[in-house]
Amino acid sequence: MAARTLTPPDTRVAVGVDLGGTHVRAALVDARGTIRARAEERTEATAGPDRVLAQIKRLTDAILADAPEEVVGIGVSTPGPVDTIAGVAKNIPTLAGFVGYPLRAELQKQYPFPVILENDGIAAAVGEWRFGAGRGLDNIVYVTISTGIGGGVIADGRVLRGRMGMAGHIGHMSIAPDGALCPCGGRGCFEAYGSGTALAARARMAAVGCGDTVLGRDGGGIDGRSVFAAARDGDRLANQLVDEEAEILGRGITSLLHIFSPDIVVVGGGLSEEFDRLQPGLRSYVATFAMPAFRDVNVVKAALGQNSGLVGSAALALLADAAREER
Amino acid sequence: MAARTLTPPDTRVAVGVDLGGTHVRAALVDARGTIRARAEERTEATAGPDRVLAQIKRLTDAILADAPEEVVGIGVSTPGPVDTIAGVAKNIPTLAGFVGYPLRAELQKQYPFPVILENDGIAAAVGEWRFGAGRGLDNIVYVTISTGIGGGVIADGRVLRGRMGMAGHIGHMSIAPDGALCPCGGRGCFEAYGSGTALAARARMAAVGCGDTVLGRDGGGIDGRSVFAAARDGDRLANQLVDEEAEILGRGITSLLHIFSPDIVVVGGGLSEEFDRLQPGLRSYVATFAMPAFRDVNVVKAALGQNSGLVGSAALALLADAAREER
Repeated sequence: MAARTLTPPDTRVAVGVDLGGTHVRAALVDARGTIRARAEERTEATAGPDRVLAQIKRLTDAILADAPEEVVGIGVSTPGPVDTIAGVAKNIPTLAGFVGYPLRAELQKQYPFPVILENDGIAAAVGEWRFGAGRGLDNIVYVTISTGIGGGVIADGRVLRGRMGMAGHIGHMSIAPDGALCPCGGRGCFEAYGSGTALAARARMAAVGCGDTVLGRDGGGIDGRSVFAAARDGDRLANQLVDEEAEILGRGITSLLHIFSPDIVVVGGGLSEEFDRLQPGLRSYVATFAMPAFRDVNVVKAALGQNSGLVGSAALALLADAAREER
Repeated sequence: MAARTLTPPDTRVAVGVDLGGTHVRAALVDARGTIRARAEERTEATAGPDRVLAQIKRLTDAILADAPEEVVGIGVSTPGPVDTIAGVAKNIPTLAGFVGYPLRAELQKQYPFPVILENDGIAAAVGEWRFGAGRGLDNIVYVTISTGIGGGVIADGRVLRGRMGMAGHIGHMSIAPDGALCPCGGRGCFEAYGSGTALAARARMAAVGCGDTVLGRDGGGIDGRSVFAAARDGDRLANQLVDEEAEILGRGITSLLHIFSPDIVVVGGGLSEEFDRLQPGLRSYVATFAMPAFRDVNVVKAALGQNSGLVGSAALALLADAAREER
């Protein structure tokens, strides 16, 4: 007997753009989340909006050159805070000239299909929700840990946006009174303790007073990567630093469990490449200090790696198209 | 010319129940949020679920005795964490015997109309959203400060529930490393520093070493209320303690601004009676340490006072009824 209903294969595709402080990346993504084509350039971060928009156009033209399918839209992920309701970049610290800039309207002039604008943490959360580690779940907290800490939240099966679409700046919850200065101007932020930048700074301080470590020996620079590398080689100080990092992340994530009650926490960003080393300490913190009803929530590594935001911004364009069809 | 459409006056009413650790309160609430009748008793907190459910029935019978209108449902606000999706109380610390207890099903047996169950912080947030200080806004963070700290969130025009409906336990975000023990078992929680209980404990400690204060003089006990009273009388130590309290609350609320991007923060609970004294310090913290895009968000006192949860739980029953009608 034949199946009663046959859904036709979804042949829609969308463009995802990940506009970052160092790279602009564009991809053609299909309805299964597969990247069909991609292109990237170093961001002309100091050149001003016109040049950056021209970069985006150049990259998307390249990937659209031989796109046979119906392109339903383009999603652009941008560093925040950006008012994605009004479509205006308020003041992007990593990109010169994006101050009160009507980013969505200017992008829209370039394309015949709808433009979606999204804060980068939220776009990455959407990527993991639709096609990554949070697939099929309704409540997801995505945490990205790299030079800073950002995030995005899916709650009750919907993207959490908040006023001006600026929800999810979880790197700027205060975790220490009168604490370390944060790039945001605040003190004691999660980002100021848990980011890769903060880990490297702690490592440089600690290495100065420690004779018994390979960190910084031979005048080599110390960054997050070198701390993990030294830890793998058995360096005691490096392992202490990594254990401390896991504890800081565990403490921040435990707070997020209580605040959002997610089904899962997905960890992305550069530091997530070292997730296997961080996970035991992180899990131990959650198991000890989360309230009992929250202890069994899984904390996992992002499945899409560095593509969460790229795929997520395309997914937002596909979702918007599906919503238009429903109306 | 007559108006084209005349909406009939909404004559629906619902019952709200606020089940707390010290009092059970019930009210008949109309579609404008007005309390038409109310009743309360001290909670038989150690007597077990049967007795507490009998209390609720007795109170609701009393207020329904002469309710002429159509009662569309009952909303029950309960201390958390309660799995409001499954309707099961996991383990309510303040009420004996509510462990794995099918609270919604047992309540439903008592009533001919639908029962809605909600965590107390969320119910109070809904009260302020529909009928209080957050009326007409889509993004609200409600913070209740009394013996503990709780909360509830409205985001993008919807109630934020999360896994098992347990979102909004904002009192248990960690604000200090290796910090003060919290009743939840954690360390350094917002509740362990910012609650009325924590303020009183700090005051007792400080008064011991201070000759120049009225706090605790004549062997009198020190609680939150007496600290504010002494501050009003010009007591230096009391004013320092209150300023510190405002700073702690400001720090927690600044984190919540970044995390949720609300249109407004509404402060309820016992300590909100002293909101006017706390507001300048609180506002100053936000204005200094929130990221610029978040600084203009208002922090206000709950408009419904101690009735936020009572009215909010009835509002949830009214909303559920409206949703049923739409289907």
